[in-house]
Amino acid sequence: MMRTHEAGSLRAGHAGQTVTLTGWVARRRDHGGVIFIDLRDASGVSQVVFREGEMAERAHRLRAEFCVRVTGEVVRRPEGNENPEIATGEIEVTATDLEVLSEAAPLPFPLDEHLEVGEEIRLKHRYLDLRRAEPARIMRMRSEINRIAREVLHGRDFVEVETPTMTRSTPEGARDFLIPARLQPGNWYALPQSPQLFKQLLMVGGLERYFQIARCYRDEDFRADRQPEFTQLDIEMSFVEQDDVIELGEQILASLWSGLAGYEIPRPVPRMTYADAMAKYGTDKPDLRFGLELTEMTEYFADTPFRVFQAPYVGAVVMPGGADQPRRQLDAWQDWAKQRGAKGLAYVLVGEDGTLSGPVAKNLSETEREGLAKAVGANPGDCVFFAAGERSSARALLGAARLEIGEHCGLIDHDAWSFVWVVDAPMFEPISETEDVAVGTGRWTAVHHPFTAPNAEWADTFDQDPESALACAYDIVCNGNEIGGGSIRVHRSDVQRRVFNVLGISDEQAQEKFGFLLEAFKYGPPPHGGIAFGWDRICMLLAGAASLRDVIAFPKSGGGYDPLTGAPAPITAEQRKEAGVDAKPAATKATEGISLQPQTVVEKQG
Amino acid sequence: MMRTHEAGSLRAGHAGQTVTLTGWVARRRDHGGVIFIDLRDASGVSQVVFREGEMAERAHRLRAEFCVRVTGEVVRRPEGNENPEIATGEIEVTATDLEVLSEAAPLPFPLDEHLEVGEEIRLKHRYLDLRRAEPARIMRMRSEINRIAREVLHGRDFVEVETPTMTRSTPEGARDFLIPARLQPGNWYALPQSPQLFKQLLMVGGLERYFQIARCYRDEDFRADRQPEFTQLDIEMSFVEQDDVIELGEQILASLWSGLAGYEIPRPVPRMTYADAMAKYGTDKPDLRFGLELTEMTEYFADTPFRVFQAPYVGAVVMPGGADQPRRQLDAWQDWAKQRGAKGLAYVLVGEDGTLSGPVAKNLSETEREGLAKAVGANPGDCVFFAAGERSSARALLGAARLEIGEHCGLIDHDAWSFVWVVDAPMFEPISETEDVAVGTGRWTAVHHPFTAPNAEWADTFDQDPESALACAYDIVCNGNEIGGGSIRVHRSDVQRRVFNVLGISDEQAQEKFGFLLEAFKYGPPPHGGIAFGWDRICMLLAGAASLRDVIAFPKSGGGYDPLTGAPAPITAEQRKEAGVDAKPAATKATEGISLQPQTVVEKQG
Repeated sequence: MMRTHEAGSLRAGHAGQTVTLTGWVARRRDHGGVIFIDLRDASGVSQVVFREGEMAERAHRLRAEFCVRVTGEVVRRPEGNENPEIATGEIEVTATDLEVLSEAAPLPFPLDEHLEVGEEIRLKHRYLDLRRAEPARIMRMRSEINRIAREVLHGRDFVEVETPTMTRSTPEGARDFLIPARLQPGNWYALPQSPQLFKQLLMVGGLERYFQIARCYRDEDFRADRQPEFTQLDIEMSFVEQDDVIELGEQILASLWSGLAGYEIPRPVPRMTYADAMAKYGTDKPDLRFGLELTEMTEYFADTPFRVFQAPYVGAVVMPGGADQPRRQLDAWQDWAKQRGAKGLAYVLVGEDGTLSGPVAKNLSETEREGLAKAVGANPGDCVFFAAGERSSARALLGAARLEIGEHCGLIDHDAWSFVWVVDAPMFEPISETEDVAVGTGRWTAVHHPFTAPNAEWADTFDQDPESALACAYDIVCNGNEIGGGSIRVHRSDVQRRVFNVLGISDEQAQEKFGFLLEAFKYGPPPHGGIAFGWDRICMLLAGAASLRDVIAFPKSGGGYDPLTGAPAPITAEQRKEAGVDAKPAATKATEGISLQPQTVVEKQG
Repeated sequence: MMRTHEAGSLRAGHAGQTVTLTGWVARRRDHGGVIFIDLRDASGVSQVVFREGEMAERAHRLRAEFCVRVTGEVVRRPEGNENPEIATGEIEVTATDLEVLSEAAPLPFPLDEHLEVGEEIRLKHRYLDLRRAEPARIMRMRSEINRIAREVLHGRDFVEVETPTMTRSTPEGARDFLIPARLQPGNWYALPQSPQLFKQLLMVGGLERYFQIARCYRDEDFRADRQPEFTQLDIEMSFVEQDDVIELGEQILASLWSGLAGYEIPRPVPRMTYADAMAKYGTDKPDLRFGLELTEMTEYFADTPFRVFQAPYVGAVVMPGGADQPRRQLDAWQDWAKQRGAKGLAYVLVGEDGTLSGPVAKNLSETEREGLAKAVGANPGDCVFFAAGERSSARALLGAARLEIGEHCGLIDHDAWSFVWVVDAPMFEPISETEDVAVGTGRWTAVHHPFTAPNAEWADTFDQDPESALACAYDIVCNGNEIGGGSIRVHRSDVQRRVFNVLGISDEQAQEKFGFLLEAFKYGPPPHGGIAFGWDRICMLLAGAASLRDVIAFPKSGGGYDPLTGAPAPITAEQRKEAGVDAKPAATKATEGISLQPQTVVEKQG
């Protein structure tokens, strides 16, 4: 090593020793010819003093972020000069030699803790950004997160398996990224949206307990804070029921939060049905750090004279103390609702004497006005917001309003952790309601993915009433973030075909796309299930970071652009030609002309 | 869980307990109405007996690889019926209940230990192949290999960082796989050949100790046993010298071999210069499990009358006891050499009385004949093979002959482990001699990669004499396999530019392709170096597997074809259109129209 000690490791006990340090000039101060620098390496900072004539002269040319090697003697700082703020504050190093390992040009931004510079420039110079304490801390924490999770899993005999990333499409609600196959012109690989099918095949293979911290890829129209490549902790188990996967998931989360957030998650983590979550919180990822449930008012307004409330669903959420909002604020709520695609946000203000006001109030019947505050649980001084219309969109609006109210009224304890499993989700949703790319061409698409099993109650009848059928699926939600989700899988090819049929995937299409899975299910597939944790999001929560980009070493920016390398970039005509981008696939099967022929009549062998 | 116990865990101590097992029917035997099955799960096998009328009847329909759940009582086997071969051999389970979880069609191949079926069908049904003991053992061992390596690295404060896989090309001797960027039509991502540039940027970022078990991609003309995607244990360190990286590498390997092969690698592992390896073994990955060094005979034959030996290089290797090979065998050597692209393999047979024979002998001068056996270290009864011609190709031929001789003559102890570091490799090689895709367009290409630093001796002069310049590079070789390689890197942009220039990469091209690296080097880059281990190959060696495909869960076959999923496959016209495959890049910079503009004048800020 080019150094004898790490800068952050020096203590009073080292006094008298000659040490060699390497690192960066974090700060330089001149005090009448004596030069002090804070020498920073990954371990911390030591103060280095250049006292003598020549040394001080050489140190004079040091600038911020020069990379240096310093040799000197560790001495105790003069009494009164100690710095209790830093671990090395009792000592300093009197330099006897200085070597500049490399110089630094003036920086594009100062490496301060409280950085004001835009994210674009930080990401373009991410290697400088990472020298700051907070990004460095986050990178180290992410590594610890991996270590702790793997420790739990190895401790329970899980086997880490790497699954392919140049493969066939695994349709799970997004577009695939594609790769032309130069050696099989006209054919393309797809990057996997998840290892879903491979982990199921590993279960068919008898592995029983699989995990992988897996890179996944989705070609989405990047909404805020999405990355084209992301990471999940991917787990699959055989011979399990929902409770087994949930118990394991809780152990992993408990170890992470205990080890890295100093928080003991109370176990078992509570469970809530999807139906309850939607009814009470207007979302399948409720933030339970505060109460403030929605109230359904459809019955209450069954005979209302108010046209707007003559709707399939009417619901309300209360804003405590919201009655004294100025008109401007109430208008802002309307704008907020319109930005979300709603027509507006109806409201009623409850006066201190209980009288109702606001534009809606006068449209209600006498009886409706009288019982309203009680029915929604509003107190004098509160504001009641309403949404009316289609159940799902009205609830979503109220759920979002609830979160706004929570923030606005300071109802959310930002130091709190709140975990909940959302269970019994529907298997299917109308294709019109999904934000994802639908799998199949039917009226219905999968809420989770097409390999999710119905729960026990719907095992036989899920395809007779797709709208009502419930899945054996479970999502784990932390502070309103979905941080993981899984399910018990279909493991019978007849059931899998019936699911495909509901999704509008014909037997022929299923055979074409998932033939290998259906084939695998012919050979004694075990019952199995699993879970995948959104690893970037978990890192973000544990690190207290504001964005997924903060927990990724080299994140993409908007539109999938990498500000550092400039990827993606044009390719040359030669690359294009060589990669076979424009080749037509052979008219015969893609497997022609290569050594392995598909085996189509395997059942007859053995 | 659907079971109470694992099949392989039952012992005599469980006798009397009622247990529920799940797993697969590995074998079924009927003994006069009593039916025995071997029930296999991931933990092992238990014998289950169906004695009573109804149970035996239900068990009668069980077939190989049915997946079942059995409840029964653990009983000690009758005396004399114990099976000491298996851990559960003292007990059996008398079934009281049987549930068929799923049936199995007749198998495409029997799941025996000694499988005769072709690899194609095994890979197409890899999920069945993995139920066999040996593939399952290898999967588990690979997981352990990961665990042990990470334990060493975490123990030394290394930080695991995930680097991007949708990025810009990192030219390292192969073609890139490309991905069209739908959101930036006409632009493409590349899959990384390694995380090389990103790990170097992490060092510039002050991380100091990085590792990652990283997926890498090379679009090669698949030679035998290459995979388009493969895995390396990737490591980078700052403020280190060659010895530091080597010491860490040895600790990782020592932990792996100690933990998984029961072998303590003697440390320090010996080092050999590249020049010595080429001279003595004709390869940069010498197999030192046996001796049999090449002898250079160029000087010896300086004045030879034999035209063939009037060559820039003549060398020899001895085949002990090879003099009595029949003519047919000696002809086979000629064919072997011709298959390797040589004209043939000259040989001289040393008779028991010391006289030389064979077609070459008579062409030699008297003096040459007389001293020959001694000069090459041949004994009576040996055969001496010669190669003459260009140094590199002649040595390569002799090196390959040496390995053939080693196998043929039983000189190789297949239970032995032999490790060696090959150091001081050349920085450059003539572009005509590389098997890889050359980086740059100059006369020279990089032997390692273009980011490798010259060693101390050549720091200033490497570009004055590219042919002779030595790199600060080190490869670790085990039993003739290169299992890892690394180098101290260039960390100064002026030196990096000079390397690029030798490779025929102009400053402008360098700026276009590696501008971000050169930019990073402006800001106090630390001296750094690292290593990457070929993880698949290490797994193969530790597992005693015959092929890289055996240590990969779902390997590709020849031509990058996946026999299981059928990838790669044609895409639809709609996919093609949507992915923007045929879009032209915007005439202006790729970054137009997206949120982040490249920052071109950053040096002037800060």
